[in-house]
Amino acid sequence: MKITFMGAGSTVFVKNVLGDTMLCDALRNAEFSLYDIDAQRLEDSRLVIEHMNRNLNENRAKISTYLGVENRKEALRGANFVVCAIQVGGYEPCTVIDFEIPKKYGLRQTIGDTLGIGGIFRALRTIPVLQDFARDMEEVCPDAWLLNYANPMAMLTGFMLRYTGVKTVGLCHSVQVCAPRLLESLGMDAYKNDHIAHIAGINHMAWLLKLTDKNGNDLYEEVRRRAKEKNATEKHTDMVRFDYIDKFGYYCTESSEHNAEYNPFYIKAGRDDLIEKFNIPLDEYPRRCIKQINEWVERREKLLRGEGLEHVRSREYASHIMEAIVTDKPYTIGGNVLNNGLISNLPQEACVEVPCLVDARGITPCYVGQLPLQLAAMNSSNIYPQLLTIEAARTGKRDLIYQAAMMDPHTGAQLSTDEIVAMCDELIAAHTAAGFPITAI
Amino acid sequence: MKITFMGAGSTVFVKNVLGDTMLCDALRNAEFSLYDIDAQRLEDSRLVIEHMNRNLNENRAKISTYLGVENRKEALRGANFVVCAIQVGGYEPCTVIDFEIPKKYGLRQTIGDTLGIGGIFRALRTIPVLQDFARDMEEVCPDAWLLNYANPMAMLTGFMLRYTGVKTVGLCHSVQVCAPRLLESLGMDAYKNDHIAHIAGINHMAWLLKLTDKNGNDLYEEVRRRAKEKNATEKHTDMVRFDYIDKFGYYCTESSEHNAEYNPFYIKAGRDDLIEKFNIPLDEYPRRCIKQINEWVERREKLLRGEGLEHVRSREYASHIMEAIVTDKPYTIGGNVLNNGLISNLPQEACVEVPCLVDARGITPCYVGQLPLQLAAMNSSNIYPQLLTIEAARTGKRDLIYQAAMMDPHTGAQLSTDEIVAMCDELIAAHTAAGFPITAI
Amino acid sequence: MKITFMGAGSTVFVKNVLGDTMLCDALRNAEFSLYDIDAQRLEDSRLVIEHMNRNLNENRAKISTYLGVENRKEALRGANFVVCAIQVGGYEPCTVIDFEIPKKYGLRQTIGDTLGIGGIFRALRTIPVLQDFARDMEEVCPDAWLLNYANPMAMLTGFMLRYTGVKTVGLCHSVQVCAPRLLESLGMDAYKNDHIAHIAGINHMAWLLKLTDKNGNDLYEEVRRRAKEKNATEKHTDMVRFDYIDKFGYYCTESSEHNAEYNPFYIKAGRDDLIEKFNIPLDEYPRRCIKQINEWVERREKLLRGEGLEHVRSREYASHIMEAIVTDKPYTIGGNVLNNGLISNLPQEACVEVPCLVDARGITPCYVGQLPLQLAAMNSSNIYPQLLTIEAARTGKRDLIYQAAMMDPHTGAQLSTDEIVAMCDELIAAHTAAGFPITAI
Amino acid sequence: MKITFMGAGSTVFVKNVLGDTMLCDALRNAEFSLYDIDAQRLEDSRLVIEHMNRNLNENRAKISTYLGVENRKEALRGANFVVCAIQVGGYEPCTVIDFEIPKKYGLRQTIGDTLGIGGIFRALRTIPVLQDFARDMEEVCPDAWLLNYANPMAMLTGFMLRYTGVKTVGLCHSVQVCAPRLLESLGMDAYKNDHIAHIAGINHMAWLLKLTDKNGNDLYEEVRRRAKEKNATEKHTDMVRFDYIDKFGYYCTESSEHNAEYNPFYIKAGRDDLIEKFNIPLDEYPRRCIKQINEWVERREKLLRGEGLEHVRSREYASHIMEAIVTDKPYTIGGNVLNNGLISNLPQEACVEVPCLVDARGITPCYVGQLPLQLAAMNSSNIYPQLLTIEAARTGKRDLIYQAAMMDPHTGAQLSTDEIVAMCDELIAAHTAAGFPITAI
Repeated sequence: MKITFMGAGSTVFVKNVLGDTMLCDALRNAEFSLYDIDAQRLEDSRLVIEHMNRNLNENRAKISTYLGVENRKEALRGANFVVCAIQVGGYEPCTVIDFEIPKKYGLRQTIGDTLGIGGIFRALRTIPVLQDFARDMEEVCPDAWLLNYANPMAMLTGFMLRYTGVKTVGLCHSVQVCAPRLLESLGMDAYKNDHIAHIAGINHMAWLLKLTDKNGNDLYEEVRRRAKEKNATEKHTDMVRFDYIDKFGYYCTESSEHNAEYNPFYIKAGRDDLIEKFNIPLDEYPRRCIKQINEWVERREKLLRGEGLEHVRSREYASHIMEAIVTDKPYTIGGNVLNNGLISNLPQEACVEVPCLVDARGITPCYVGQLPLQLAAMNSSNIYPQLLTIEAARTGKRDLIYQAAMMDPHTGAQLSTDEIVAMCDELIAAHTAAGFPITAI
Repeated sequence: MKITFMGAGSTVFVKNVLGDTMLCDALRNAEFSLYDIDAQRLEDSRLVIEHMNRNLNENRAKISTYLGVENRKEALRGANFVVCAIQVGGYEPCTVIDFEIPKKYGLRQTIGDTLGIGGIFRALRTIPVLQDFARDMEEVCPDAWLLNYANPMAMLTGFMLRYTGVKTVGLCHSVQVCAPRLLESLGMDAYKNDHIAHIAGINHMAWLLKLTDKNGNDLYEEVRRRAKEKNATEKHTDMVRFDYIDKFGYYCTESSEHNAEYNPFYIKAGRDDLIEKFNIPLDEYPRRCIKQINEWVERREKLLRGEGLEHVRSREYASHIMEAIVTDKPYTIGGNVLNNGLISNLPQEACVEVPCLVDARGITPCYVGQLPLQLAAMNSSNIYPQLLTIEAARTGKRDLIYQAAMMDPHTGAQLSTDEIVAMCDELIAAHTAAGFPITAI
Repeated sequence: MKITFMGAGSTVFVKNVLGDTMLCDALRNAEFSLYDIDAQRLEDSRLVIEHMNRNLNENRAKISTYLGVENRKEALRGANFVVCAIQVGGYEPCTVIDFEIPKKYGLRQTIGDTLGIGGIFRALRTIPVLQDFARDMEEVCPDAWLLNYANPMAMLTGFMLRYTGVKTVGLCHSVQVCAPRLLESLGMDAYKNDHIAHIAGINHMAWLLKLTDKNGNDLYEEVRRRAKEKNATEKHTDMVRFDYIDKFGYYCTESSEHNAEYNPFYIKAGRDDLIEKFNIPLDEYPRRCIKQINEWVERREKLLRGEGLEHVRSREYASHIMEAIVTDKPYTIGGNVLNNGLISNLPQEACVEVPCLVDARGITPCYVGQLPLQLAAMNSSNIYPQLLTIEAARTGKRDLIYQAAMMDPHTGAQLSTDEIVAMCDELIAAHTAAGFPITAI
Repeated sequence: MKITFMGAGSTVFVKNVLGDTMLCDALRNAEFSLYDIDAQRLEDSRLVIEHMNRNLNENRAKISTYLGVENRKEALRGANFVVCAIQVGGYEPCTVIDFEIPKKYGLRQTIGDTLGIGGIFRALRTIPVLQDFARDMEEVCPDAWLLNYANPMAMLTGFMLRYTGVKTVGLCHSVQVCAPRLLESLGMDAYKNDHIAHIAGINHMAWLLKLTDKNGNDLYEEVRRRAKEKNATEKHTDMVRFDYIDKFGYYCTESSEHNAEYNPFYIKAGRDDLIEKFNIPLDEYPRRCIKQINEWVERREKLLRGEGLEHVRSREYASHIMEAIVTDKPYTIGGNVLNNGLISNLPQEACVEVPCLVDARGITPCYVGQLPLQLAAMNSSNIYPQLLTIEAARTGKRDLIYQAAMMDPHTGAQLSTDEIVAMCDELIAAHTAAGFPITAI
């Protein structure tokens, strides 16, 4: 069995996912194919993975590396699973562009990797790369499953599912941690590992639709009571989602720093009071990037010395999916797939995050039915800019880029139509200058 | 044949619609049943209609009036057509409430009768009245067609179609005048009465999807060129919709003063420059109400003296619908109906404005297919608050009122979630105080 | 304006349709382009049409003829409307094949032009010809409307709508005559021209869903009573459809001789009693063909002498459609279109016969909703063989031909699976020998 | 945890299902509630289950019995799972009626429990009983899962899902055994426990859509080759389904004796050659009933003596479903659920058999997409009589019973419409006489 890792320079993520596979009998003898375009980071990853293979895996896995576009097809050839964790454009130049140009127009962001003007441009520069991956995969590993971790999840996965022949599922760990962290943060730790959660919606805004204890007794009423009280009485880091619970009745998967920018309510020009009140960390993502870069030197040293390479199998979906497919022991995930009527009141062609069954037959999404109307409304406000961005990426048409940005609930609320056009033009120019021209694929 | 007019105190509108019927052979012998709850206005209408019946119609029609709720069922009994033009709550107290309370929260409106906070509360106070009409109609004229002119069109008509047994169509004259006025305003008068327009979407935001001359030659490219130039070079009264043409590629049915508030782009706190740039008449609707009230005394005098009662049959749909049904000569209208997949990328249960065939079989909506994605996105942003408002009106649940307001693109862009809740609470209290409590129906 | 007639050798049909256009102000100056592959019949038609143009139309129309495949594209170039009335394969050899080979297997037919083994092979030999027409039309008259009269209607029209870019509607006069003839045959002549009929379903099995007098009073109960009595007391030519009324509750559009073979109920091996009881004219279509051929010599003589060329405008849809599109005066037809959810309980991709609005915007189908379940069941049993035949014609795959025949309710009821395969093989061989090979298009 | 068994007089089935639960740690301490209306059989089951509880389960389960309709509600009160294995009417009188009356009309059956005239009447007498169960369950165990094993599966389960509030799944072991037995019968035993099968469709006609070895290599081509050869060269008991493989390209779940009567191809009046050729066991089900009755005396003796009560956990879904729900360890089943678009080319309201995920969240059906067209056609021919029967049972309308029978592919192929009416009338009368009147529920 061959597992290919696209963007293998993400050393820590590779370490976690491949560490998981080394702890799984059905996967530990696999061939690991590591692909990246950054020679140094790829080499780092190789050293770390080989170290783990020796220490944890009795050298059973076979590890090879493939550097650069010219070796990409070989990296993919014959793969059974392809894990994609690329980030096109990096912190510099692209994340800086994503944040700094909008800021000139008064548009402030927190994360910018999912929706909003940052998410739109991240998709525009990433989809052409995924399209190249897809062409290779259709040729050299047409039956492989693509496990996509790259963001913006819904746009990238939606593109792959609708416009390529690659079997794709989009994965995010926010589903697994949603209910446990909520229960913990509300002092309901007793239920942290002892509850049943039903989650569906779209990536980063999938709704915790139902929450009970193991015997089916409702926990949500108590959650609602405590969340309201906590938001009223203390400053904390999850205030936006607690406000969702209060106003929309339901909690959702991604963090408050993400959800602060998926709607028009919290980040508003001239409303620093709201930033303060909901404790919103503007520019959070660039800050994290810088921190990660700064800490990497030291962390890398340690990893290369073999420190911190102990590994306990995590709840990250990738290895569990591979195991379930290989062994036919069923596993349940929350995966990103084409809607096709599964959530009956969201657009058919949306990319939705729903429970999926994984077994020897592959990854099969499950029926959800209707979302509560207000949640469908919130999801829908995010889905249209996603769909417009996918069309923009396919066609390279500027109008579609402008329209995606206008229909984004945060961007449209902040700027005028002409400002949005000007900002997009400037972003397109900056991308082009940085080597990421936006053209039809 | 019996035609009942609900809200017959709208003298000028009654005059126009019933004037039309008197000019139609198939309808002029009808029985006109006029219903209102305002004795004076009902009497005014009676005098005017009787005057017309004498002068234009050789007294062929039979006219009766029904005053007050206790006579409503008799007004409706045996009706073939029921024309609804009610306005619940009037300028005072309700329109004043709709505008003044939001203004305290910094939320400014232009018309407030369709969407937005004004439209939501107008629906909340009107749906219970329509529900009463529906119960009567189901009993005393179950086969009658309800021609609904009351606003907010999509919410009221959607409610009737989904939750009552009354055969309903929603009517608005913005469809008929859309293309002619556009061509006129762009100096393309040659085509004013000589073009083919294809229009579909939702009420007040139905899109001019295609515009050709009689031979099928495209006129839209020229329209786009001229509209962009006009917006760039002069101040005029249709700047918002011309910006739609520029940004979304298509013109729509209702005026710029309406469309200024159906999205987050033009009316923004602290952005008087946009109000100025797009020439947006804030508080336009109350201003019109006051003007109409002030002019009514004089106009009434004239009408009662029989002045201005000449009548040429208009393009108002009502009489043409009745004629087509009675005579089986087909007629095409743009009507508001349940979507049911006719516009395949809008929600099934939306109330959409699409071409309808009218003949002896009644009013039958036509298939449209997919809207361009950006137009579906715009419509969808309006449809969710509409659907939430309908549920709020049915159930009387406050949360649904808040959610309708939050999901309204203009309200959500301007205010925080807590401000929206506070504003809605104040509006509910003011409605209750004014005799319009918001409860489950 | 240019009207092209494909299969213009059908002199009588051309005479009727073009006669209608000559009696319509908006159409009489058109250019008539007559195309056929039979020189003699084309010349006959030319003489007749020129005669009519002189006598009825002051020579205002321009008439040209195009003989043979090599002139087809010119016939079509620049056409506004294309009327298709071709019959591929003729009585000899193909109709004879369609009836005689199945008869050897014990499979007896009445008409064989719609469904059943005859209909399937008629489609298989016709779709390639229509595909050629489509390629030409896409090139030389991409905006033209194709008015298709050729059978099997649902298969041919369904193919055009799903697999070509040609704007197509399928037309059949059984819709117009359905209710009048029913009323006449039941002695309810008073309502013959004074009723309202609502019809929807599939071609030749579109259901008379509702029948009222002009005031909306139900006529169906009386129809049901009389039809049951008539079937019980006399032998007549419409016994199958009267049995439909009794058993399924509804009448349908095409005649009893057609409907006898659209289901498994009436024509059964070894059940001559049913043939007798329901008065079923086996081999009716070949008999008609022979009669027509025999009478043609005399009729032709007369026509060429100019006898019988008086013309009163008929209810045939073609000229009315052209007039409505050209003048924008709306007209209602029953047209064959893609379902797309209009009849919500039939397959999306079925070709259905539903009310359509015709005006300057073209031919737009209307919403129907759910059919009564038993009618949907009957239609559905016909739709699957239609869909399978279309795929068989596209791909040339024998398995799909066998499967279409097996799923045909009459064929499957009569023969075993192996007999169906053998019969299809023999039919394919006979078609190939006759110059109509069945291959992928 | 409480497990209620409706129809607990089916001793052998109870023994198997409850035996399974006793071998499962998560279930063995449950309370087993046994309900039946037959005192003797209920007592037999009690003795057997208590014996097993002693021998296999250290008396950990609590067993109680409930006899008769008056104790039904107590049997259900507080249940977590309800297993339904009732047979209304028994061999005598009802199965005899189901077979003997149709036989008088020349309509011969094999099993008669799924579709066809036997299946229709079995549903008509069973649905009222299930409706009573549903009313009780809605009151005393509204959160319980109903695991329905009773036939006709699609009609009964479809009724429960559409017209009651009970969480229901329909279960049949034909899914599990489909591929293994096929492989075995074709001498491909090597793959018997080492293959991947993808199955979807409707109960008893769910299609083996894909069959590969564990590495994804196709096995179907070899299956097709061997099946064709086997049918050509030997007489065996699975000839109908092997003919399906040959003609439709796919194998399906239920046996050839069942599938012989789900279509018009194999059992035909006057065609004993086909009965012979396809080795079709007419009257198989009554024969089995008699055999079972005859053997029961001896078998009962043994069971009551405690012989044959060893038990190995089976692949029967019931205990695995309960375990997966209780433990949240995911399990995959083929379950019968409402279609809702999961099989996108079958009717929305059909009851379909598709892969389902079972975990703590319950039983969630998975997306399938389009069936090959010919398979959709076959399923659809069965679905319409099912839907008509459900409506007939709900409304008690005779016309719907006739129509269900007419649309049944076997019945309609064999009899005339009048014969079907007469036969249904006689069946209704016989049911009424036997104490099973067919009325609206």
